Amino acid sequence: MKKLTTQMELLKALAKRSESKILFLIIDGLGGLPLSEDGQTELEVAHTPNLDFLAKKGICGVMDPILPGITPGSGPAHLALFGYDPLHFVVGRGVLGALGVDFPLDQSDVVGRMNFATIDQAGRLTDRRAGRLSSEKGKELCSLLSQIKVKEVELFVVPVSEYRAALVLRGPDLSDRLSDSDPQTIGVPPLEVQSLGPEAQKTAHLVNEFIAQARELLSEQHPANMVLCRGFGKYRPFPSMEEVYKLKGAAIAAYPMYRGLARLVGMELIPTGKEVEEEFRALRDNFANYDFLFLHIKHTDSAGEDGDFQRKASLIEEVDQLLPQLAELNPDVLVVTGDHSTPIPLKAHSWHPVPILLTSRWVRPDRVERFNERECLYGGLGRFPATYLMPLALAHALRLKKYGA
Amino acid sequence: MKKLTTQMELLKALAKRSESKILFLIIDGLGGLPLSEDGQTELEVAHTPNLDFLAKKGICGVMDPILPGITPGSGPAHLALFGYDPLHFVVGRGVLGALGVDFPLDQSDVVGRMNFATIDQAGRLTDRRAGRLSSEKGKELCSLLSQIKVKEVELFVVPVSEYRAALVLRGPDLSDRLSDSDPQTIGVPPLEVQSLGPEAQKTAHLVNEFIAQARELLSEQHPANMVLCRGFGKYRPFPSMEEVYKLKGAAIAAYPMYRGLARLVGMELIPTGKEVEEEFRALRDNFANYDFLFLHIKHTDSAGEDGDFQRKASLIEEVDQLLPQLAELNPDVLVVTGDHSTPIPLKAHSWHPVPILLTSRWVRPDRVERFNERECLYGGLGRFPATYLMPLALAHALRLKKYGA
Repeated sequence: MKKLTTQMELLKALAKRSESKILFLIIDGLGGLPLSEDGQTELEVAHTPNLDFLAKKGICGVMDPILPGITPGSGPAHLALFGYDPLHFVVGRGVLGALGVDFPLDQSDVVGRMNFATIDQAGRLTDRRAGRLSSEKGKELCSLLSQIKVKEVELFVVPVSEYRAALVLRGPDLSDRLSDSDPQTIGVPPLEVQSLGPEAQKTAHLVNEFIAQARELLSEQHPANMVLCRGFGKYRPFPSMEEVYKLKGAAIAAYPMYRGLARLVGMELIPTGKEVEEEFRALRDNFANYDFLFLHIKHTDSAGEDGDFQRKASLIEEVDQLLPQLAELNPDVLVVTGDHSTPIPLKAHSWHPVPILLTSRWVRPDRVERFNERECLYGGLGRFPATYLMPLALAHALRLKKYGA
Repeated sequence: MKKLTTQMELLKALAKRSESKILFLIIDGLGGLPLSEDGQTELEVAHTPNLDFLAKKGICGVMDPILPGITPGSGPAHLALFGYDPLHFVVGRGVLGALGVDFPLDQSDVVGRMNFATIDQAGRLTDRRAGRLSSEKGKELCSLLSQIKVKEVELFVVPVSEYRAALVLRGPDLSDRLSDSDPQTIGVPPLEVQSLGPEAQKTAHLVNEFIAQARELLSEQHPANMVLCRGFGKYRPFPSMEEVYKLKGAAIAAYPMYRGLARLVGMELIPTGKEVEEEFRALRDNFANYDFLFLHIKHTDSAGEDGDFQRKASLIEEVDQLLPQLAELNPDVLVVTGDHSTPIPLKAHSWHPVPILLTSRWVRPDRVERFNERECLYGGLGRFPATYLMPLALAHALRLKKYGA
């Protein structure tokens, strides 16, 4: 079990049970950049009367997911939102995928993220995602690879979604100090997995053995005729939100990685479809049963990574139109923010701070009247590290005792 | 070698090579205070169309050099700008002077900053800078003092500039745990150098022996008839900007202490004259050869310490007029800021935060339209510790990989 940070120790000492409810609406990749010097961001362009109403009613600000200037992956960015210092709580992508599809991990398991991929006759990568395989085909190929046997260890090839899978090694003396076989680019052959310390030599050998057999088994398949592995790690349980914050939490998230993250911090996973409306419905149906609810919207980030300004703006408007459904649930604290920015011109995650709004009976009002990057700069929450969000939410839900006499 | 801070470890793991260029224009002592309650600062009074243009185009904020309320010396203030936590990376003033004039220091050397000074017949200080001696005279007197011999150790008396020198002791069993002989005031005699621990008794004795002989040798000189020593330290190499940030850096700085600082963090030193125009020319001539360039303007701080409002405002205007020369070089990231404030009414460094502007293709715009203390308060960078400047600059130069999956 990872140790608590100083902030978590403090919150654990101060947290108290209550009937109050906290709701986080996380719009993935929310923050942006204008397309031109005098232009507006997608959030500024989008027509968002409901977000603006909440911004006016609540308190706003901007958050740095990790540190100023640091661009986060989705894993560390979400951990920060839940109050888990992402420089302290480190977790591999394979572990998140496996947890996200409910695979029962052991603490000695070594887990890597696995992609199905395409190589040409010379063995060079031509597609790192095998044409974004269907989930059905992905499952079928994972079954095929489950035949593979290597010495001494049990192997599990766990389908995650589409071309994504997790490779789990279970057995004695395994180490996760392994390099990636995924070169993160095309036109070159996959890499050998290397041990990053002498204790990992055996594991590296076994993974390479698995990859060789997988290549053999997939040789007649197309486009998925190869696998790529990366992000090896062991599963180390994190302290739960229940333990630290005394919150019974639930996650409504369609994508396995986010479900894995939520499970890692002790939330229950609510079944949901992939559409925003389906997620909102799942939230409404389960709102009464939890103290803390995390609703994750993925599509906005994907639109940002595709560089599609109009689609991202439209998706933000779609969320905005559904917002009154959340307000009707009347949570004691409602937070709307992103995990990180995904600006259209960068087509990637970025370091830019993320706008946030928080409503509660107990907010001290500021002057912000619209929810966007520029307005939120002048909000009452100022600019702050994302790990402060949880204590702010708990406080506004009257779930923290006084510190000291 | 000093250990890396957590932030540096992170940046070292994320930094990547690139063709992009980062330029820091550091206007020493930039921030100020109004002379009267309703007045304006020197930066507000100065006519600065080019700085204002960049402020409008870029993103602004204010920085705390060390911590809110802490007034920094120039050494720690510059270390913070370069991302070196000044509470962790401590360096003596003597070491900086010696490095700034290219004296080849060893790691066991003990180095103190030395001033030529004036004492009266009763031995009381009348001028701590000996009438601001010329550099030529300073050199001559340093040669004179180089005759001094003390037991067991080699002595070097290194001219730095004007009345400033460095005293270097090289030999076995030396310690830098020494008090200053400079009482930092006039009307009193210089102090005995004391050992601050038993291991420094021998070194204290040797330094006092040197000072006694120097006083003897200088007795016929006027006004430089005495020496004052302070800021003893050993030279401990710092991790370089190349090692931590993968940046090939160069410094254009006329004054030895700033050159010493730049060398300490691994920058190359570009030869330059002392005038601002000469520095700008040196920058233009060398811009193509480096990833990171640091241009240091000294005169603004001196005007502040002299309490000369008009001169400081004029010097700011002079820099402003030369600014288009920097813009023409088209750096990927341009930062204009100071190392600390030097307000006219205080005639000294102060703790007030320093205005900063940053331009880059990738800044998220804010509403600041003028570059001064009051406007920058409302900039998109907010108020932040100066050690965050390097990660922000690297990010805007697209020189950092994503953290985590």
